[in-house]
Amino acid sequence: MSTLITNIGELTTNAPDDDDRLGTVQDAAVLIEDGRIAWAGASGDAPAHADQVVDAGGRAVIPGFVDSHSHLVFGGDRAAEFEARMAGQKYAAGGIRSTVAATRAASDDELRARLRGFARELLAQGTTTVEIKSGYGLDVATEERLVRLASEVTDEVTYLGAHVVPAEFADDHDAYVDLVVGDMLDACAPHARWIDVFCETGAFTVAQSRRVLEAGVARGLKPRVHASQLGPGEGVQMALELGAASVDHGTYLTDDDVAALAASDTVLTLLPGVEFSTRQPYPDARRLIDAGVTVAIACDTNPGSSFTSSMPFCIAVAVRDMRMTVAEAVWAATAGGAAALQRDDIGAIAPGKRADLVLLDAPTRVHLAYRPGVPLVRQVWKDGDAAL
Amino acid sequence: MSTLITNIGELTTNAPDDDDRLGTVQDAAVLIEDGRIAWAGASGDAPAHADQVVDAGGRAVIPGFVDSHSHLVFGGDRAAEFEARMAGQKYAAGGIRSTVAATRAASDDELRARLRGFARELLAQGTTTVEIKSGYGLDVATEERLVRLASEVTDEVTYLGAHVVPAEFADDHDAYVDLVVGDMLDACAPHARWIDVFCETGAFTVAQSRRVLEAGVARGLKPRVHASQLGPGEGVQMALELGAASVDHGTYLTDDDVAALAASDTVLTLLPGVEFSTRQPYPDARRLIDAGVTVAIACDTNPGSSFTSSMPFCIAVAVRDMRMTVAEAVWAATAGGAAALQRDDIGAIAPGKRADLVLLDAPTRVHLAYRPGVPLVRQVWKDGDAAL
Repeated sequence: MSTLITNIGELTTNAPDDDDRLGTVQDAAVLIEDGRIAWAGASGDAPAHADQVVDAGGRAVIPGFVDSHSHLVFGGDRAAEFEARMAGQKYAAGGIRSTVAATRAASDDELRARLRGFARELLAQGTTTVEIKSGYGLDVATEERLVRLASEVTDEVTYLGAHVVPAEFADDHDAYVDLVVGDMLDACAPHARWIDVFCETGAFTVAQSRRVLEAGVARGLKPRVHASQLGPGEGVQMALELGAASVDHGTYLTDDDVAALAASDTVLTLLPGVEFSTRQPYPDARRLIDAGVTVAIACDTNPGSSFTSSMPFCIAVAVRDMRMTVAEAVWAATAGGAAALQRDDIGAIAPGKRADLVLLDAPTRVHLAYRPGVPLVRQVWKDGDAAL
Repeated sequence: MSTLITNIGELTTNAPDDDDRLGTVQDAAVLIEDGRIAWAGASGDAPAHADQVVDAGGRAVIPGFVDSHSHLVFGGDRAAEFEARMAGQKYAAGGIRSTVAATRAASDDELRARLRGFARELLAQGTTTVEIKSGYGLDVATEERLVRLASEVTDEVTYLGAHVVPAEFADDHDAYVDLVVGDMLDACAPHARWIDVFCETGAFTVAQSRRVLEAGVARGLKPRVHASQLGPGEGVQMALELGAASVDHGTYLTDDDVAALAASDTVLTLLPGVEFSTRQPYPDARRLIDAGVTVAIACDTNPGSSFTSSMPFCIAVAVRDMRMTVAEAVWAATAGGAAALQRDDIGAIAPGKRADLVLLDAPTRVHLAYRPGVPLVRQVWKDGDAAL
């Protein structure tokens, strides 16, 4: 089965040439065969035959978004908490612990139905690959359920038992870490590719974080880290020592952190929805990119600090408030996400890559930031199949 | 023909009761008959019979958005200018004059196709009433075309010949005002309900603005004003003297302006997309609302300063960056817009009102701000007809 997409006004390939990291082709075409990109280039050079021809009508095509950071398996929501926070009010009830309670109480079928709804929602917004973390179970049985359910919808499953310390271990954090690296890891590792930890004052210390990640690595999981969201710390340096694929958040990076990231293969993943939805200060993407750090953008979809699932929205905020150019933001949301997941088969439209593409209802990718909030995703192909 | 919408988890009526300006009803139903709201209230009290029953599945229903400020009839776009501005670069070409040139060069059919595309786009995002301004023609023939085309898609047409002074009158602004209040007004008044002027340093002086508005009023048009967007001025006071329905922008209001607005029937319409897309400072909605000013939110959809058409996006930004509560922002985007257009038949879900409603894919209106960028509009009824 082959599909030829013709009359593409602007094609973003992320196959860099000398002048353009995004490998932009005007008046372009793409040939899909058996779920992979078979050919991409200028219309005049396009193959003549395909089983099916789709006329893009002069619109823009980009690689499918790769969202490398989400928390999509949970019960309940926290709309009332959000509303109170935005109104400057205190909100007594629960925070993350209310989500943990709702998640533990939900059946597999309830969690699965919700998760599949989110998966459809993401796909309709152009996200063709999503990483999903556990972390709202915080006991062995529930964490196992979360990674198992996540593995039904993505290959990029992250075990985040070390999300926060649950109430029942409030007086003995190290005992909770024992569980995370013990029985909980045993239960979760078979379903996961990644191990993650929230290394931050109030969550897990650097020593505890290192212990968690090293235990995961010993079980064949690959490390990624939440760090420097709420204040500076040693989490970035620890992540780099362990060869983490990505450090996520990074709002409070020291100059040494930035230099070390730039010298490494580790991606720094920015999460614009978090700062938008919590009124925290935005990290400065300009500083990172100018220093040579590889930057990704992800949505961090979760009920507490960022309930958006819209990569176009995150691109628009990254451009306005993190000082990325539109091209940098689109790259960060596609190829950047792929780098943060250490995937070389996605994030670009080039021969041999998976045929994950988005047709925009716009003449150029610039509209993703120029038209914030407007649903611009007209069609999505995932592994070569039209999804909408 | 009657339609009963049942099992509404949260209904926002904007029919105020003692405690709640938004007249919120939990577990509600709405009966539509012949394009109007026949009944709205608690499910237990709902009428038993209707030709058609729609199960809202516990989701939220709100009044259709009333977008009281847009510029939807134009040729071309200015994506390259936007991209350069966001990258901190100078952009030599054209600005608004490039849109004027593209608009003058476009055929009626081209403008009409574009306009209808925008009208569909707005409706799909929950906007059931939109005001549309002229102002990219700036000559008699083109301004007449713009108001005429706008009148094909809305009753809320605004003649904005006094948008900016066109290049051909750069040396004699008053001569352009002569045209605006003369032949151009003659040509446009039959198609319009409103007259508007951009009263700002660099556009039209207070004296010129007054002359434009008074000429329109003498022809039966009702006044509305762009003022205090780029700096303080006397535009607000002038607008109030003339009984303008709304003053729009209002970023730089003096304390006297705020007090005068609060004492008047004039609405202050905030345009969050403009500040988002130009990195200008956000006006402080908290100050206005606390002083007693009636506030609306509109998208100001235009190719230069705000190309969003998403009222949910504008609500989210108004909550985050203008310090509105979610309830205030939802009211401002519905009942507030109706007030800004002096309409008492829209903006609320109450007996006798037009049946313009939005079913959200969310349990509460809070999700409009809590889930920024996510397309949450599941169904729209316009005059009682399902639109999606």
